[in-house]
Amino acid sequence: MPKTLFEIDLSKPMQDQAHPGHNRWHPDIPAAFAVDPGTSFRMECKDWTDGQISNDDNPNDIRDVILSRVHVLSGPVYVNGVEPGDLLVVDILDIGALADSEWGYNGIFAKENGGSFLTEHYPNAAKSIWDFHGIYTTSRHIPGVKFAGIIHPGLIGVAPSLELLQKWNKREQELKMTDPNRVPELAASPDPQNAVLGTLKGAEFDRVAREGARTVPPRENGGNCDIKNLSKGSRIYFPVFVEGAKLSVGDIHFSQGDGEITFCGGIEMAGWIDLRVDVIKGGMGKYNIKENPVFKPGPVEPHYSDYLVFEGISVDETDGKQHYLNAHIAYRRACLNAIEFLKTLGYTGEQAYMILGTAPVEGRLNGIVDIPNACCTVAIPTQIFDKDISPK
Amino acid sequence: MPKTLFEIDLSKPMQDQAHPGHNRWHPDIPAAFAVDPGTSFRMECKDWTDGQISNDDNPNDIRDVILSRVHVLSGPVYVNGVEPGDLLVVDILDIGALADSEWGYNGIFAKENGGSFLTEHYPNAAKSIWDFHGIYTTSRHIPGVKFAGIIHPGLIGVAPSLELLQKWNKREQELKMTDPNRVPELAASPDPQNAVLGTLKGAEFDRVAREGARTVPPRENGGNCDIKNLSKGSRIYFPVFVEGAKLSVGDIHFSQGDGEITFCGGIEMAGWIDLRVDVIKGGMGKYNIKENPVFKPGPVEPHYSDYLVFEGISVDETDGKQHYLNAHIAYRRACLNAIEFLKTLGYTGEQAYMILGTAPVEGRLNGIVDIPNACCTVAIPTQIFDKDISPK
Amino acid sequence: MPKTLFEIDLSKPMQDQAHPGHNRWHPDIPAAFAVDPGTSFRMECKDWTDGQISNDDNPNDIRDVILSRVHVLSGPVYVNGVEPGDLLVVDILDIGALADSEWGYNGIFAKENGGSFLTEHYPNAAKSIWDFHGIYTTSRHIPGVKFAGIIHPGLIGVAPSLELLQKWNKREQELKMTDPNRVPELAASPDPQNAVLGTLKGAEFDRVAREGARTVPPRENGGNCDIKNLSKGSRIYFPVFVEGAKLSVGDIHFSQGDGEITFCGGIEMAGWIDLRVDVIKGGMGKYNIKENPVFKPGPVEPHYSDYLVFEGISVDETDGKQHYLNAHIAYRRACLNAIEFLKTLGYTGEQAYMILGTAPVEGRLNGIVDIPNACCTVAIPTQIFDKDISPK
Amino acid sequence: MPKTLFEIDLSKPMQDQAHPGHNRWHPDIPAAFAVDPGTSFRMECKDWTDGQISNDDNPNDIRDVILSRVHVLSGPVYVNGVEPGDLLVVDILDIGALADSEWGYNGIFAKENGGSFLTEHYPNAAKSIWDFHGIYTTSRHIPGVKFAGIIHPGLIGVAPSLELLQKWNKREQELKMTDPNRVPELAASPDPQNAVLGTLKGAEFDRVAREGARTVPPRENGGNCDIKNLSKGSRIYFPVFVEGAKLSVGDIHFSQGDGEITFCGGIEMAGWIDLRVDVIKGGMGKYNIKENPVFKPGPVEPHYSDYLVFEGISVDETDGKQHYLNAHIAYRRACLNAIEFLKTLGYTGEQAYMILGTAPVEGRLNGIVDIPNACCTVAIPTQIFDKDISPK
Repeated sequence: MPKTLFEIDLSKPMQDQAHPGHNRWHPDIPAAFAVDPGTSFRMECKDWTDGQISNDDNPNDIRDVILSRVHVLSGPVYVNGVEPGDLLVVDILDIGALADSEWGYNGIFAKENGGSFLTEHYPNAAKSIWDFHGIYTTSRHIPGVKFAGIIHPGLIGVAPSLELLQKWNKREQELKMTDPNRVPELAASPDPQNAVLGTLKGAEFDRVAREGARTVPPRENGGNCDIKNLSKGSRIYFPVFVEGAKLSVGDIHFSQGDGEITFCGGIEMAGWIDLRVDVIKGGMGKYNIKENPVFKPGPVEPHYSDYLVFEGISVDETDGKQHYLNAHIAYRRACLNAIEFLKTLGYTGEQAYMILGTAPVEGRLNGIVDIPNACCTVAIPTQIFDKDISPK
Repeated sequence: MPKTLFEIDLSKPMQDQAHPGHNRWHPDIPAAFAVDPGTSFRMECKDWTDGQISNDDNPNDIRDVILSRVHVLSGPVYVNGVEPGDLLVVDILDIGALADSEWGYNGIFAKENGGSFLTEHYPNAAKSIWDFHGIYTTSRHIPGVKFAGIIHPGLIGVAPSLELLQKWNKREQELKMTDPNRVPELAASPDPQNAVLGTLKGAEFDRVAREGARTVPPRENGGNCDIKNLSKGSRIYFPVFVEGAKLSVGDIHFSQGDGEITFCGGIEMAGWIDLRVDVIKGGMGKYNIKENPVFKPGPVEPHYSDYLVFEGISVDETDGKQHYLNAHIAYRRACLNAIEFLKTLGYTGEQAYMILGTAPVEGRLNGIVDIPNACCTVAIPTQIFDKDISPK
Repeated sequence: MPKTLFEIDLSKPMQDQAHPGHNRWHPDIPAAFAVDPGTSFRMECKDWTDGQISNDDNPNDIRDVILSRVHVLSGPVYVNGVEPGDLLVVDILDIGALADSEWGYNGIFAKENGGSFLTEHYPNAAKSIWDFHGIYTTSRHIPGVKFAGIIHPGLIGVAPSLELLQKWNKREQELKMTDPNRVPELAASPDPQNAVLGTLKGAEFDRVAREGARTVPPRENGGNCDIKNLSKGSRIYFPVFVEGAKLSVGDIHFSQGDGEITFCGGIEMAGWIDLRVDVIKGGMGKYNIKENPVFKPGPVEPHYSDYLVFEGISVDETDGKQHYLNAHIAYRRACLNAIEFLKTLGYTGEQAYMILGTAPVEGRLNGIVDIPNACCTVAIPTQIFDKDISPK
Repeated sequence: MPKTLFEIDLSKPMQDQAHPGHNRWHPDIPAAFAVDPGTSFRMECKDWTDGQISNDDNPNDIRDVILSRVHVLSGPVYVNGVEPGDLLVVDILDIGALADSEWGYNGIFAKENGGSFLTEHYPNAAKSIWDFHGIYTTSRHIPGVKFAGIIHPGLIGVAPSLELLQKWNKREQELKMTDPNRVPELAASPDPQNAVLGTLKGAEFDRVAREGARTVPPRENGGNCDIKNLSKGSRIYFPVFVEGAKLSVGDIHFSQGDGEITFCGGIEMAGWIDLRVDVIKGGMGKYNIKENPVFKPGPVEPHYSDYLVFEGISVDETDGKQHYLNAHIAYRRACLNAIEFLKTLGYTGEQAYMILGTAPVEGRLNGIVDIPNACCTVAIPTQIFDKDISPK
């Protein structure tokens, strides 16, 4: 196995690790180490909350999670010779759990602390614990369900340039100001509290903590894309914005349904990830890959062949109001339709919701032009259930 | 092969067919014929525009299409003994082209007549003609691309109840009135012009033409869902709103990319579809399938295993404005990113756009909670190209 | 659809068709027609027995089948400009049933008239009739089973040169002479009786009928390979032995399990096949494809993801005798093991045998070096059954 | 991760491990440990030769391998409460390499010491070393090839009863005596030399060493089946012949082509395997699973969708002699055809042979009834090559 260049001690918070990692995006966070193109290496990662969630049956830790501490990331990795304008090529060689930590959690955030996709319907915190059995997982909180993990880093990205960072902060702040008191909030502002910024100290720490973008949203640098298909064997092409690219990774999920709809999140876990980095000089221009990463999924995703698919359209379920090609609402309706069906199998709404958040369900944008309704679907692999769930 | 119960003569408009079909939704459109549960039968279908588009190189027919004539549907089929509250089970046994009509078209609608998903970027009409070679298709207008069709009805649905119809018309009109002069329009209002309503005549025709909902959007009855995975071998469970269910079908696509982003549409074709109908009595309540159809995809979709995937986030590309978890914009950005990449292979923007509209590309809602950015992806199967397209 | 260049009237025997076809291999059988490279065309085919089997419940027609009449083939097709040393490239564009003939049959041949893979265990003739429902098939003789067809020509091949033909006849006769009275016979000798040889007449007919190789075995020219994966969308590269290649096709199967173990055969049917031919000049030498065809399977095979797999080893089940790396016996044992299991679901041995002969089961050579036992497996897709068949 | 119940120190031979393991089959080899049904546990395994092969470029260790030392197995595991007549259910939860041992080897055995499937064509020893990069592997000895491993235990089985053991020894000895001086030998006889028999000592060791069956062939107890699809996530149902079942495992392969044609073998490696055991009481009778194990493959096999397939028939390539439905010869011809093609890409015959031995190629029994020729195929996934290999 490749050399571990970023080690984690699960008993310590991120700022006390050998390499302290970081939980904000900023070009001036110092690299943890440097490697040459062509190098393979292992990085260990804490779970995204830095260990705030326990393997027990009480969801209060989900309810009370301190969101200024997320996402604790391993890195940044400086790749020698890589410059703005290049593409950083990252191969995800393998991912796994840390020894004696073969479990994960899924949570529904409370509406007043984070919220979730269906927060108006499920405003209270909930939690399910998932045990890993090799490639499979089961939860004592959701009986009758077992599936193979499509393990992936929820968050992987490169550092923004200062200019890009300022663009992020500006546009997000403008959005937030349109409804500054909204619960849940519209965007997470820079917040020095609980910032972890590698080895930065003193005034430099304070400046970067004040300026650093929060890690919640995916952006031009990749980041918290929560793409379940970035699993073992994937190759990612990142646009590069700073010298050395400064790659960071974390938020490992044992599995996740498309949308990560419970927000906390997929099956969240600590773990390790083996990466190989390389470079395509001048690749951003050559391939017009400038705004977001591009990737090729790997060949060992779990393969299912039998799905039950639920449709949704962009009509608000609460007031019946018609929205214009709104895929957000359409997918919400599809998920709600799926949950209503899953309830007929005996699950509570929260259990059904967490099935959609954790199992390898597929969320599709099927029709996005048929005015005024978008059509989205959520597809549930029927083989994850221990009985036949098809209507008869 | 099952008996053809709805025959089409391609030389005639829909209103002059043996069964005249319809292009509006209304519970009072008379059934073309009735069948018992358990029956298999063939329905022939015109292309969705009723033959307005020609197999030539001139996109003016796309530009000038008369949208009040769409979608011409075959049906309704009355299924004996089926009542509101039941589930109508529809198996799509097979689909094919009509003899001597083994071609289809894809078009980008002009902004001022229909528009499309990327209409601000590609406001002019364009057209590509696709020839069918058994399971494969190619276009003389888009060289270097060949793929197996994932043939499906873009539109299949049951009749609404009068109450449901009124709900549709009301909510869509309210949306339209928020910006009544918008181009393209926000919603298509009921429009007696060019209405085709089966065998209705006289005052009854006039009333239904005035009240009938347009067929453009997908709704609770299924309808124009444009779900590419409703291909051969699929089983659909429809909620039933009227006696006999009144099933109609049309808008056959030889293939389509998720989103049907060019709007006109996938690869549009005339064709036949073999259906089998059955019923689950009281199924709407038993399975909580009340708002939208549910389906199981068939087992013979073309299978690809190598994709290039493009990401997008919900930041508007024109003004850089941040939107809140807007999957519509995120998917648009993903598609624009894909087009910019495809241009580096030598395609024009319009050609690249039409590749995304026609080939079996997958559109995913990957992350829908990471405030304020939704993350959507579009995945292109690399094997449709006659050369290796991966960045090197 | 491509032009039909070989038409079939199902009410007539092969020798009375517009193009009479053939049921022997010989370079001097005249071509039915000629086409240029790059041409697509349709060929209609009778079932392999020339209509000897009826859609009824009586297996006597299987028992009494006249084997000197098989396989009736459509062709030969002369491809202009193709010469020995070239590769003939054949695309299977599509395949289907003839109108009003959407059914097929599977039979177990009687030991004394043909035999089958398990003829010592199942020496009596049996028959099952399979109805086609679009992409699916079911049999009234085998309840609880439904699957998507992997439709393919059991037999497709090019004409041998005279030299190659003589080699075939010599080597097969030598084998037959090692046990000339064996039942079933070891090989089928040339037999003028019931020979159909296109438009040949008189002395030339008599000579070719006397010399023509039987169509039963696959050989260097392709022929009766019974490869289920030669389904829609496949591309085959044939070595060419005579001017024009002289391509022939027949023995269409709606589906077949690997091995075609019941011998009669897969689900046998009349039908049509759309082909496109092309040439790689000098390809035999360039690619070292000299002895047998090479092919690429198409992308629309039915995809299953859950199998129950049965192993077998090369120990004879009757006397317990150990054989040396004998994959024939190992696969037989695997099939017998599968049948014994299927009996516990309530099937008779004959029904189970016919499931293995018709459904898309996979036969694998897993280990062929572990002296003295070969290990072969037969994998049954569990989703073809209407209930869960896994041991609990 | 589950508790490691069988630990390996790679610096020591099997007889000196904490649990000494075994390399013969005999019911009286003492169990290494006992577990209850429902238990998960990890077993570490040496490579099958007990460390005789080095990570270098010299194939002499392959040539001179001491075959009486193979296969060193971890176990036996006694499962409490399991009795003859039951089915032992074994889940393969996960498999991996040992730390600092992330490489494997493939070898062609010399004809005079083991031989291989194509030993008449490739009589000399050869070796390739394969490095593991997470899910992928490459070899410095075979450029241009990279693939995802389908990792599996080549050997997993339960102990025979004494009666079954005696049947094995008798039938194999009878075969061997038909040509006792053949090179390679027809079967491996019991051989006390280099026997490893767990903790047995003294006279009992001598007796069991004398009687113990060699581990080379697969048999009724499973054993050395070399089934590449017994990969992560598989469930195996073993017939049980002795109290406690006595499960053993070893011979881990990072990957293997169907047939394991080079004999040494797939990509051979040391590693660990996580298993879960359970029991179906009386399952052998209930499900008629009496002669060989039955299994369900897991869901994370690498998925490829583009293959080049080579056919072979049962005509001997050396003398042109026709054999009767001989799948062994047919598969050999298919493999030889594939090798001849791969040579045109620039590979030596030995390199091509080792590609077939290591990559996830599929070996199929396509037709096994078309007298006198069996038809077998070998399918090579084209995506393992770094260039397009299709004939043009």
